[in-house]
Formats: sequence, C-alpha cells, structure tokens
Amino acid sequence: MRPQRLVVVGGVAGGMSAAAKAKRQNPALEVTVFERNAYISYGACGLPYATSGVVPNLQRLIARTPAAMRARGVDVRVRHEVTEVDGERRCVKGRNLETGEAFCAPYDALVLATGALPVCPQVPGRALPGVHVMRRLEDAAALREAIAAGATRAVVVGGGYIGLEMVEALVTAGLDVRVLERQAGLLLPFGPKPAELALEEVTARAEVVLAAELLGFEGRGRLERVVTSAGTFPADVALVAVGVRPNNALARALGLRLGPAEAVLTDAQLRTDRDGVFAVGDLTAAHHRVTGRPAWIPLGDTANRQGRVAGTVIGGGDARFRGIVGTAITKVFERAFATTGLTLAEAQRHGLSARETQITTTDHASYYPGHRPLHVTLVWEEGTGRLLGGQLVGYGDAVKRIDVLAALLFRQGTLQDLADLDFAYAPPFSNVWDPLAVAANAALG
Amino acid sequence: MRPQRLVVVGGVAGGMSAAAKAKRQNPALEVTVFERNAYISYGACGLPYATSGVVPNLQRLIARTPAAMRARGVDVRVRHEVTEVDGERRCVKGRNLETGEAFCAPYDALVLATGALPVCPQVPGRALPGVHVMRRLEDAAALREAIAAGATRAVVVGGGYIGLEMVEALVTAGLDVRVLERQAGLLLPFGPKPAELALEEVTARAEVVLAAELLGFEGRGRLERVVTSAGTFPADVALVAVGVRPNNALARALGLRLGPAEAVLTDAQLRTDRDGVFAVGDLTAAHHRVTGRPAWIPLGDTANRQGRVAGTVIGGGDARFRGIVGTAITKVFERAFATTGLTLAEAQRHGLSARETQITTTDHASYYPGHRPLHVTLVWEEGTGRLLGGQLVGYGDAVKRIDVLAALLFRQGTLQDLADLDFAYAPPFSNVWDPLAVAANAALG
Repeated sequence: MRPQRLVVVGGVAGGMSAAAKAKRQNPALEVTVFERNAYISYGACGLPYATSGVVPNLQRLIARTPAAMRARGVDVRVRHEVTEVDGERRCVKGRNLETGEAFCAPYDALVLATGALPVCPQVPGRALPGVHVMRRLEDAAALREAIAAGATRAVVVGGGYIGLEMVEALVTAGLDVRVLERQAGLLLPFGPKPAELALEEVTARAEVVLAAELLGFEGRGRLERVVTSAGTFPADVALVAVGVRPNNALARALGLRLGPAEAVLTDAQLRTDRDGVFAVGDLTAAHHRVTGRPAWIPLGDTANRQGRVAGTVIGGGDARFRGIVGTAITKVFERAFATTGLTLAEAQRHGLSARETQITTTDHASYYPGHRPLHVTLVWEEGTGRLLGGQLVGYGDAVKRIDVLAALLFRQGTLQDLADLDFAYAPPFSNVWDPLAVAANAALG
Repeated sequence: MRPQRLVVVGGVAGGMSAAAKAKRQNPALEVTVFERNAYISYGACGLPYATSGVVPNLQRLIARTPAAMRARGVDVRVRHEVTEVDGERRCVKGRNLETGEAFCAPYDALVLATGALPVCPQVPGRALPGVHVMRRLEDAAALREAIAAGATRAVVVGGGYIGLEMVEALVTAGLDVRVLERQAGLLLPFGPKPAELALEEVTARAEVVLAAELLGFEGRGRLERVVTSAGTFPADVALVAVGVRPNNALARALGLRLGPAEAVLTDAQLRTDRDGVFAVGDLTAAHHRVTGRPAWIPLGDTANRQGRVAGTVIGGGDARFRGIVGTAITKVFERAFATTGLTLAEAQRHGLSARETQITTTDHASYYPGHRPLHVTLVWEEGTGRLLGGQLVGYGDAVKRIDVLAALLFRQGTLQDLADLDFAYAPPFSNVWDPLAVAANAALG
C-alpha cells in the first residue's frame, strides 16, 4: 500500500531531502512540509560564516525556497508549528504562527525531521537580551544585528566545534572574544592532540578560560557580564554553544522508541517503531558502522542522506541507510580539524582493544613551497589491525583526506589497506608516502 | 635459507626502499646498492619544480645520501654501472664509471631496480646540445644551466603529464614555451574532459600544436629549430617527454619473464621467475586490482611500496604487494588533474561493460568564498555498479579526494558505497553532498 499523502515535520536538511526525493520518486504523492521557522533548506553549517560576514548575505545559505519547492509540487508551509501527532487517525495538528489559526493534516506517511535544539544551561539571566544561541538562520541574523549595534566584547560558552567556529566568526567580525569551557580543554571529542592544537590556535586570537563552570548571565535589562566559577567576564553578547539535544517532543508524545541521547531509533529505512512514521536527521540515532551500535552524531550531511533514503522508500523505491562512521571536519582560524570513527578513548569506552599511533609530517613534499604540518592519529584494533578511527589536524583541504579513512572504515578496512593503498602523488599535493600511509606503516611497525 | 648478501641495482625509489627495509628487517644482512648515476634516493617527481626554480636547490630533492645510507649499514656505490648479471654464479659485474675499474659482487638475493628510460624518437639531430630529457637529477641540472645561459625559447615534445609539468616549469622560469603533441589532445590518458580542460589551461600560457609529428632537431652545433609535420619551430632548448620504457636490458639478458610494455613480471613478493632475483619499481609490471591483470604504470610511490615489500621479504619477514589501482595526480598551472582506475575508453578496451557519469560542481560550499569548480568523471560497471575508475579536474588539494575513489577501488567498492559514504563536511572544505557523492548519485539516477 503505497502512501498517497506524505507529511513532513521540519523543513531543513533531512526533512526537505525526504520531501523532495519522495516527490521525485512518486510524482503522484501529495507532499506537505511544515516548518516552524521562517526558512527552509538552509545550510546551518554556514551560520558562523554568515555571522562573521565572510558570507555577506544570510540568504546565500538558503538552498531552496518554499516557492521553489512548490514549483516542484511540494507544499511547504513555513511558520507552521506542529504540536501534536495523532498516530491512530494519522494526522498532525498545529498552529499557523502568523495567523494563530489551527491546522490539521492527514497523512499516510509521516516524516519527523524536527532536528535538534541547543542546550541552554538552566542558569539565572539566560533569557537576557544579548544571550544568543546558534541554530537557525534567525539566530545568525540576531547576532549580526547585535554586532551592527555596537557589541565589541563577546563571550562564547562552550569549546566544542560550534563554539570554536563561532569564536573565529566573532574575532573575524572584529570583536574581542573570550571562550569559556567547562572541561580542561577545547575540542576534546577530537582527541588529546587535536585538543592541544586547537588550544594553541585559539589562544593566539582569543582568551581561553578552561574549567569554567557557567553560573549565570547578569546585566540591567541586557547582558553585561557572564558569571562563571573561574571569574566574571564583561560581555556585550554571549553565545551559548554547550551542545544540542534531539528535538524529540513529538516523538516522545507518540511513544517512539528512543536510543542514545534520547534520539529516535529507526531501522535502515528510517522507519520508527510506529507504523507509517519515519524519522530522519538530527532527531534520530544512526547505526555506527565501527561500533555496530546506534549513535547520535547530529550532522547535516547525515540528515540529507537519511532524508533521501526515507523519501525513496516512501515514494515506493528501495533504499537503505547504511549508517555512519562519525566523520566531521571543522575549521578553527587557520587550522582544520577532522575526525572519523572513534578516538582512542571512545574505542576503549566501547570495550575495544584499541591502540593509537600518532605522526606529524608535511602535507606536501617537504621540498615544495607552501607545505605545512599535518598531524595524523590512527586508532586501530590490536590483533586484527582493523581501523577504528582517525583524527587529522592541518591546514586547508589537506585535512579533507580524512575521507580516505572514512571510506576504509565504511568498508571495514585495516591498517594494511591504508599502508598498501595506491594514493595519488605529486609534490604539490602530497609526499611520496601519503601522510596516512606513513601513519599506517608506523602503526604496523 | 635466509639471504646473507643482498645486491640492489638502482638506487632511486624502489631500489633504495628495498635496501633500507631489508637492512632494517635483518640487520645482519650485507646490503650493497649500485647506482649508475651520481645521486640516489631523489624525488624524481620534483624535477619539474627544481627546473623552474620553485625548488631553488636541486639538492633539496635528495631524501638520502650515500653517506647517510652507509651510516645505516647500507653500502651505496654511486657511478657504478652494473653491466651483467651472472644468474648461475649469483654475482653482478660492472664498472666504476669514475675509475673505469671493473667490479664483481656476489649475492644471495638480487633486486633489480633499474627503473625506466625516457623514449627518444629516432629522429635526426636528437643528440644536438639543447635537446633534453627529464629523468635524472642531472637532467634538471642541465636544463637549468641552459636557461641560465640565456635560453628563451623552449619546445616541449609530448603533451602527457610530464610534458605538461615541464611546460609549466619552463613558463615559470620565464621562457616562451611551445608544446607539441602527436595526438589530437593533451593529457589524453586522463580521459576526454580532463584533456579538454588541460588544453584550455595550457593554451592560456603556452602555444599548443596538436597532431604534430616530430621529424627532427636542427641547428649548427646546437639546437636551433624543431621540425615537425605541423611546421618548424625555433627553439633554444627542447624537452622530449614522449614517454618512458622499462630499463630492462639486464632483465632481458637474464631471460626474465616480461609482461606489458616489456616490464618484468613478478609475484606478489616481487620475485621474478629467476630464483633469488627480485624486481621492483618502474622496471616491473604490477597487478592492477581493477582489471585483475598486470599493468605497467611506472610511478615513484608504487616503486617505494614495492621496494618495501621486497626488502621485508628478503630480510626474512612476510609481506605482499597487493597491487595498484592506477592513481595519479598532476598540477598543470592552476589546475590539478587526477585519475584512478580506468577511464571509460580503457574499461572498454578491457572488455568491461562500462559507463561514465560526469558532473561539475564546486569544491567548497557555493556560498563560501574561494570555492572553485570541480569536475568529476566516474566510470562504473553496468549491472553491478562496481566502480571502475574516476577522474577529477579542479584546483589544489580539493583534487586529492581522488584517493577516496582509490580506496574504494582498492576494496572493490561500488557507486552505492560512494553515495552512502560518511564524508567530512563543513563549508570551507566541501558541499553538504561531497562532489564524489553527487557524482555517484547522478550515476545511480
């Protein structure tokens, strides 16, 4: 029984991919997308660059407009909030946020793509004007406005990759920036060596305060100070980037089975345990191909791939989401940091007998001008030599070679594969032994 | 019976890797390397950059000196030419080119690493001063000297990747350059679209003459003109880069079994069909993992990997050379060209039911400054979707993502693998769908 009416809740990456793909797959399908915010289909990963002005126009982040989607036969309703799903009668209910009008839409297939929400610590003053988060296009617009209005001192709360991209953005925009991190280092999920290099990179351009517990925001009518266990810091704006959580209110109300971080569990076709209900994107957990377990690693490209699979299936086609290996990359000022698979600590937490090999070499031939250092960490399984993960720190696109590791992880590759791989070599692009092969050979001994 | 005496003929990439690895593996092994030229262990792929002056000092290309090797227990004799191998008595004979003295060295294991020789068409005037090839460190030194002595007009014969790297080198060095190619395009082994873009790239900086058959070199006492079927061109220097062939004189004299291009055939441990004799590097054919047949694709990184395997085996360890997928990359002025596996034409020549998919997209997010076009060609097998090859044309390290394709080819990956792969994404490094995934999705339809 092929669905005739598809309702998608959430119109950013996963939701819009599902809607567009389902419509292409089955042009007879009626597709409606409800999006609570004013924009759909924007590149959330571009928000730091839209904040800094590196991308001068926020609209540039928008890949598809509601009008463009309507022209392709997908009915997109922005500023429509879905507040309830009636799983028995198969309809969603909600409110038009512009008019206040209630709406109700029946479905045969439902895609939940409600994404993730920024976590804001429950501290005093968190609602003060000047305290920002960065998740939606509107958030970047608000921070740009604050900068245009004369903010000069910024505090970023959180030294993960979003926090650090925002530190770069705010420094680029000309502000004095201080970054506060609760733990003892920056970018800790990338492993100890990347964390060390991130600290070096950020310290050169901003003030870093580690082991600082956020206690509150203070100010008369608007933010003036950020209070922490490590001191009180003046600030015109604060950006809170301490993490995100699945926006799972509808999923919980429906009683869907949840997994790690309370993200929705699905099968490889993105079906939840409720008939006719799919979940994609940051709301969902994904099969991690290295650990073999579900993991919650919310990323836009995963969302798009999941949306595409769900859309194919709903449109009557066949597809499977084969999982993730946990690949991510981030630029922090001049340096680039990438990770795939597991860090040593993560591998050990998963009970794997893991070892780590680290090397530093140059990204291009050492006699070729413009070569720069590239640090490689390989994580591998003792005995089998199976690759478990890797982390790179370097400069520019040289760090994009993390995808070679990701490809091998995706196909259960080994250190020996990496050592034996037929890499492309010419002096402007690499060494005669690619840095990844050097690391593999070092690990093989 | 573990060898006690290793003789290596040829001390550049494969030979020196074999010698160094064998000595590390078995420190008791007596290792002697004979090299006909004055230098060992140099980065031949850096010769164009040493010619142009981008690498100011030729010595920078040298990774290891004879003295450094001797300090590691490897006896290196440069300017020693091996002229004969006595396979029965297991000794090599030759001549010290400095003193004229004959020498004779017994071996238990012999590694032939005599490399490749530039092909020079048998035309009149080919021995005139001013006619150069580019293979050895001495060749780059000679061309630099000619430039320093006032050469201003250069003709490059051959529009393959070495020819084009030399066009760039000579233009960079300030010469007026004309490139002559016998066939109807440049860089043809990379496929039609890369050939088209290479032509565009080179035409902007040098004169390109296609379908020009070389007839001879003319001049009184030194080169003044290059005569071709498409006209006669004035030249102070000519660089002949019409290809290379295995330097197989010793191998032929020994009666070793030869394969494609008369390169030596070996097993996965680099053993020839003559007991105790190994062959590595540009002299040898390699198992091509896509076609399953031996192929001759002489490249320095392959030579190093082969040398390492042969050295391990000779030193008493276990190793296998698992073959190549034919990965190569070259920089031609601003653009970078990369290939791995087969082009469509090659796949068809191998009797494969192959198809090709081409896309052009941007290497970074299209809203992120500095993004540039990236052209992707995927070659795949009809029915199975197995990847057979791919070619990239773009700018800088973005093109190094050819290695992701190489990794999948190495492990018999499919279009679906490429589409499903967990690529690293952030706007400064890629699009939310990596260009390789875009191409895979286009091929999957």
